[in-house]
Amino acid sequence: MIRPGTPISDLDTPCLLVDLPKMDANIRNWQTAISASGAKLRPHVKTHKVPEIALRQQRAGAAGITVAKVSEAEVFAAGGCDDIFIAYPIIGVEKWRRAAELARTCTLAVGVDSEVGARGLSSAAAAAGTTIRVRVEIDLGMNRSGVPPAKAEALCRLVMTLPGLELDGLFTFRSVFFAGAEGRTAADLGREEGELMASLADRLRVSGFPIREVSLGSTPTARYAAQVPGVTELRPGTYIFGDYMMAEYGVISYDDVALSILCTVVSRPAPDKATVDGGSKTFSGDIVPARLNLKYARAVGMDAYVESMSEEHGVVRLGPGADPQIGDKVAFYPVHVCTAVNLSDELIGVCDGKVEQVFPILARGKRT
Amino acid sequence: MIRPGTPISDLDTPCLLVDLPKMDANIRNWQTAISASGAKLRPHVKTHKVPEIALRQQRAGAAGITVAKVSEAEVFAAGGCDDIFIAYPIIGVEKWRRAAELARTCTLAVGVDSEVGARGLSSAAAAAGTTIRVRVEIDLGMNRSGVPPAKAEALCRLVMTLPGLELDGLFTFRSVFFAGAEGRTAADLGREEGELMASLADRLRVSGFPIREVSLGSTPTARYAAQVPGVTELRPGTYIFGDYMMAEYGVISYDDVALSILCTVVSRPAPDKATVDGGSKTFSGDIVPARLNLKYARAVGMDAYVESMSEEHGVVRLGPGADPQIGDKVAFYPVHVCTAVNLSDELIGVCDGKVEQVFPILARGKRT
Repeated sequence: MIRPGTPISDLDTPCLLVDLPKMDANIRNWQTAISASGAKLRPHVKTHKVPEIALRQQRAGAAGITVAKVSEAEVFAAGGCDDIFIAYPIIGVEKWRRAAELARTCTLAVGVDSEVGARGLSSAAAAAGTTIRVRVEIDLGMNRSGVPPAKAEALCRLVMTLPGLELDGLFTFRSVFFAGAEGRTAADLGREEGELMASLADRLRVSGFPIREVSLGSTPTARYAAQVPGVTELRPGTYIFGDYMMAEYGVISYDDVALSILCTVVSRPAPDKATVDGGSKTFSGDIVPARLNLKYARAVGMDAYVESMSEEHGVVRLGPGADPQIGDKVAFYPVHVCTAVNLSDELIGVCDGKVEQVFPILARGKRT
Repeated sequence: MIRPGTPISDLDTPCLLVDLPKMDANIRNWQTAISASGAKLRPHVKTHKVPEIALRQQRAGAAGITVAKVSEAEVFAAGGCDDIFIAYPIIGVEKWRRAAELARTCTLAVGVDSEVGARGLSSAAAAAGTTIRVRVEIDLGMNRSGVPPAKAEALCRLVMTLPGLELDGLFTFRSVFFAGAEGRTAADLGREEGELMASLADRLRVSGFPIREVSLGSTPTARYAAQVPGVTELRPGTYIFGDYMMAEYGVISYDDVALSILCTVVSRPAPDKATVDGGSKTFSGDIVPARLNLKYARAVGMDAYVESMSEEHGVVRLGPGADPQIGDKVAFYPVHVCTAVNLSDELIGVCDGKVEQVFPILARGKRT
């Protein structure tokens, strides 16, 4: 539908633009930084959900990919990814069965944080005659999933007794916004996360458990955690595009933000307001911007922010000098890129002001 | 993939369940209530985005449908809807062209709130040789789109001079959460909205403008606004399913909420917490629940609420007596059904505990 070579200014809106040179530079630079620390990068592909982009990450040196769902794993395996970690405590007979099938075609690791999860996965793998690598999820304070460090040994022991499973290591996820993170830097949090996990892995090894992988880190923390001895793998996702939130928090420079959402001004309800044709069904609203002292999106090259949204309207507060007219197109950096991408069916890769390649977001809408 | 007759308890999660008898009762009861007031019901189909469900609404007596985008209009027209109102000030050459084409195959009305919008639509319709009905959008305080009442006459006059356009009437939208609504009931707001619009229409008629339609109202206000003489058409959307927000605000009874999201408990991070396999990519988070004193979702038949979310995790606060185990399936009413439906590819219609029919959400992901 959208032909390569089309000027950005001719694109109908709203649409998601990916600056391909910036994306490729992010892929390269983060790979270099993580590799330099001696750890592996296993990017979380929930941010883009495009197998072809995952292959670019792998060609740059990624050790495999991270996904959140069996259905995502299936899409990426079909797209050529052969080393996949489902960083989620998957539960349910049908999901276990599909995971066990998938393990025929790729190296598959799965998160486990309960006896139910371990036994279910084991039964399915044993029935399929496949082997699934297991990473035990550790809860470092998110209080979301994972076992507390004190219970890791018991779960590792169970995994080692179960057929079809191979203990691969430990993983954790801790947002920099978890309760208790207040007032600490991403660097402090990343180092602490790495040290807690590396020391837990060491204790388990002393007890005889073959902990190969110690996997953790998000875009804010990954580069710091990577420097902790004993951390083997980092799983940032957002770094590939960056977003308004990551730029405001100093994690990524605005110059490196690779994804923007192009909208058209459809109304001017007040001298200091413009309404654009993207709202919560385009930008998403899962981050509560007020809590973070942010708005929903920041205009590119203009002092203007999406301040309120309804489903298809974004109401933009205009700063001094910003005076876009009805019909003008304005691009915005969304506050949270992962959930914005999840609302669209395609990413429009651009270079030098023109469309280079359109990527169908093949893993979008995969429920299970 | 999902066969009719499958018991709900066998469905993989997360998934969106529509109780078809409840949905059909909502369609019937709201149609009866609006018709009894002498007004027409033109439901906003953004809530379900399924042409087949729109046809059910039309068979029950709806006077046509409302959409927010040209791309949605195209999907519903292809699905058999022949009277469509795009309640949005569409801007852009390509959108105007497509609207003008669409007017060949259905009765099409479009919202206009600017000279740019009126002239663009006119040029496209004149070029295509079709006629587009125009409804001038009035801003009653949302400060989002629409012209203030005092500027309606000038815009109506322009529309009447332009080829390819036919002035059809006025429309407005005002959320019950707009700034200034505080402390007033939905009934008061609905009546006020109706009276403001009906009196504006009367003044315009006195000035010689053939205002046929006076269209307004949302699920909270529609039944009250419908009783105001001079209001010809109501456009509620959410009423077809209802949601946790509408039930908490007393707009719809919990017994009538027809859509729930079935999830599986995947972790139990604390005695009073359960984590389920639906987060912000399943429930959406566009409504800021804290501002409304609500959570993200309310469990069906259990004192439990989704209190925080990450993309694929929903952390549920359990009340006294709620103790779901890992692997248990729990259904939730989402806080805002329209944006939750927009995240999924299918609605699973159920009746008596079994799947009756799966509806692809054909207008989901339509950008432009």
